[in-house]
Amino acid sequence: MRDAEPFRIGLLGHGTVGAAFADLLSARADAVELAVGRRPEIAGVLTRSRGDFEDILERSDLIVEVIGGVEPAREYILKAIRAGRHVVSANKAVLSRHGEEIYDAAREAGIQLRFEAAVGGVVPVIRVIHETLAAAHVDRVHGIVNGTTNFILSEMSRTGASYADCLAEAQRLGYAEADPSDDVSGRDAAAKMAIIARLAFGAPVHIDEVPHEGIEALAPDDIAYAEELGLALKLVGSAERVAGGVAVRVFPTFLYAEHPLASVGGAFNAVTIESEAITEITLSGPGAGGSQTASAVLGDVISAMIPPPSAPPPAVPQPLVSDVESAFYLHLEVADRPGVLARVAEILGLQGVSVKSVVQRGLGDNARLVMVAHPVLESRFMAAVGLIGRLDFLRAPPRVIRVIEEHF
Amino acid sequence: MRDAEPFRIGLLGHGTVGAAFADLLSARADAVELAVGRRPEIAGVLTRSRGDFEDILERSDLIVEVIGGVEPAREYILKAIRAGRHVVSANKAVLSRHGEEIYDAAREAGIQLRFEAAVGGVVPVIRVIHETLAAAHVDRVHGIVNGTTNFILSEMSRTGASYADCLAEAQRLGYAEADPSDDVSGRDAAAKMAIIARLAFGAPVHIDEVPHEGIEALAPDDIAYAEELGLALKLVGSAERVAGGVAVRVFPTFLYAEHPLASVGGAFNAVTIESEAITEITLSGPGAGGSQTASAVLGDVISAMIPPPSAPPPAVPQPLVSDVESAFYLHLEVADRPGVLARVAEILGLQGVSVKSVVQRGLGDNARLVMVAHPVLESRFMAAVGLIGRLDFLRAPPRVIRVIEEHF
Repeated sequence: MRDAEPFRIGLLGHGTVGAAFADLLSARADAVELAVGRRPEIAGVLTRSRGDFEDILERSDLIVEVIGGVEPAREYILKAIRAGRHVVSANKAVLSRHGEEIYDAAREAGIQLRFEAAVGGVVPVIRVIHETLAAAHVDRVHGIVNGTTNFILSEMSRTGASYADCLAEAQRLGYAEADPSDDVSGRDAAAKMAIIARLAFGAPVHIDEVPHEGIEALAPDDIAYAEELGLALKLVGSAERVAGGVAVRVFPTFLYAEHPLASVGGAFNAVTIESEAITEITLSGPGAGGSQTASAVLGDVISAMIPPPSAPPPAVPQPLVSDVESAFYLHLEVADRPGVLARVAEILGLQGVSVKSVVQRGLGDNARLVMVAHPVLESRFMAAVGLIGRLDFLRAPPRVIRVIEEHF
Repeated sequence: MRDAEPFRIGLLGHGTVGAAFADLLSARADAVELAVGRRPEIAGVLTRSRGDFEDILERSDLIVEVIGGVEPAREYILKAIRAGRHVVSANKAVLSRHGEEIYDAAREAGIQLRFEAAVGGVVPVIRVIHETLAAAHVDRVHGIVNGTTNFILSEMSRTGASYADCLAEAQRLGYAEADPSDDVSGRDAAAKMAIIARLAFGAPVHIDEVPHEGIEALAPDDIAYAEELGLALKLVGSAERVAGGVAVRVFPTFLYAEHPLASVGGAFNAVTIESEAITEITLSGPGAGGSQTASAVLGDVISAMIPPPSAPPPAVPQPLVSDVESAFYLHLEVADRPGVLARVAEILGLQGVSVKSVVQRGLGDNARLVMVAHPVLESRFMAAVGLIGRLDFLRAPPRVIRVIEEHF
């Protein structure tokens, strides 16, 4: 075994993740050699200022792509695949936009393509969907797939402080970037959910087809009422089979305390996968830091050194549905006078919305009316909210947040 | 692809799991064929009353062993491996006793041996340790690996009822067997932790080397005090690297509310794997029912159809350490008179035990003194408890439960 050829890795990118990967690889090379029979070594490193891609490609058995962004990452990945090299990527931007092109090329070339590190930090969601659940019919995936927003929401809940203050705290601690818009808008989560939905359902999903709402408009008030109702507020990515196709979305939502994602706090990621045969599996762990992501990359490298085919099977186009059923929380500031609740309840009833719980509280001349509605088609609920928004006793625009209930 | 040979599966055992597996396989055969390129089919079924093992073996590419128990399961597994057949087993009894013999035979024969279903219900702990974390240096695994006991403890916590009443409720609901001793004594969990420790650390561990305590002696009182202290009471399997070797044990323990296992309720399983590079991963899901176990078996069958080597590498003998550090909860019923706390604290101090929190409460002439101690070597804590147990103001034997704290 000792005399086997080394396994040569071309490393594209040497930022936080790339540097952590190089360190981890040298620390763990003995263990990998013991487990797999070949010793992994870095054959070359490409950065903006050094290295030549074609030269590194020529000298590598496998390419690790941790440059990020769409180009030139896409070009390098495709060239490596077509040259018969295995590829491990941590790049959600390119996979959520050019996944089919890359998966097709990988299947055609018969190489290993692995990308656990593109989704969910250390949480092995790709491997579990792709291998453990290879034969399961996955019905639904719910994920907290952005550590930054989960940290901010946990802080809002813990301290009662505003979104802006908790964002500043996250930036101070390094959990949020100076420009946090990709995270707080839900767009980062949308890219990850596009990749997850492709694997779970075989449906080709582009990031631009994933409607996403962020956490910028959430108020400490919403969280306080949620706690009163026994709910936790999270930014959740949802991918599910629905009548007529597949629905993939990202939105802030309340979770009942018993939901496996409800207790996931801080800069953590977690994914719950539901399937009739298994009921559900939940995976959780810290959101991606350099060393966590590097560890996921190394796990993929080792799997690629042992040769099972791993590219996703061909996609099956399926309609992407956006009007789906969910439960809703509705927060109304109203004049404190008789008949208000009756009028609101009447409008909801006419739209087929059934109310599960109500909390009403006086505020001088005004009152807050907070209710949770049973699952109903989103278009119907929003039609009711549109009508309620025009009532003369309303003191502020209605606030709506989805609620995820247990399905079993 | 359509014309590829079918992949023939010999099924040993047709109880709850075996029957569920046969059903699931026929429901998912199309999906498996699409994913892997070969159609799986049952080549023969062995039960007590029908089928011939040698004949089934001859006609199979892979043997699924769901008979349970040590013999003849061990004999069949070894014969199948030596005949060059892949093996998928759900059998914790045989793997926790004859693991090395079976792993050695599998490596020698170069076949696939997979056994996710032997540990942790639907929770893919074997795959994550063996593949995702193939190159990680795992420091510690904590697991709730027995759904029966977790259900009973959750019920005790929820209702305040006694162990005996909650056990009866678990039996009524089908979560506990008529003879529950294997579950409630911790022995079932010990078998699973022996298998997990082998994979996480490479140390050969036999079930008889795993000290285990059960939940039979726990009182509603312990749970009530725990809640007051912000703790959850769980039966936890623990496997960790310690100075001088590896410690593998099963015991009831308190968990701080922030620990990822603290919120795992009902008949669920969950495992937290800690490693410096990844911090931690937690996997959770329902404990094994027939359909969940069958799903885990099918995931393993599919992985075996795609041929990476999968048997664990050779074991590295390591000392099994039993005297390790942990935090402790100590519950004393004492006469309510001056100087009692001082005397207890003095004895603890002389043994190097440092107290983290104390709750004292009067009970007529008596009092309850409940304390949590910082981590200390178990032998030292027990020496202190032995001395405390001889004090004349003690009204009942001291009660001791370990406490798991966050490590990061």
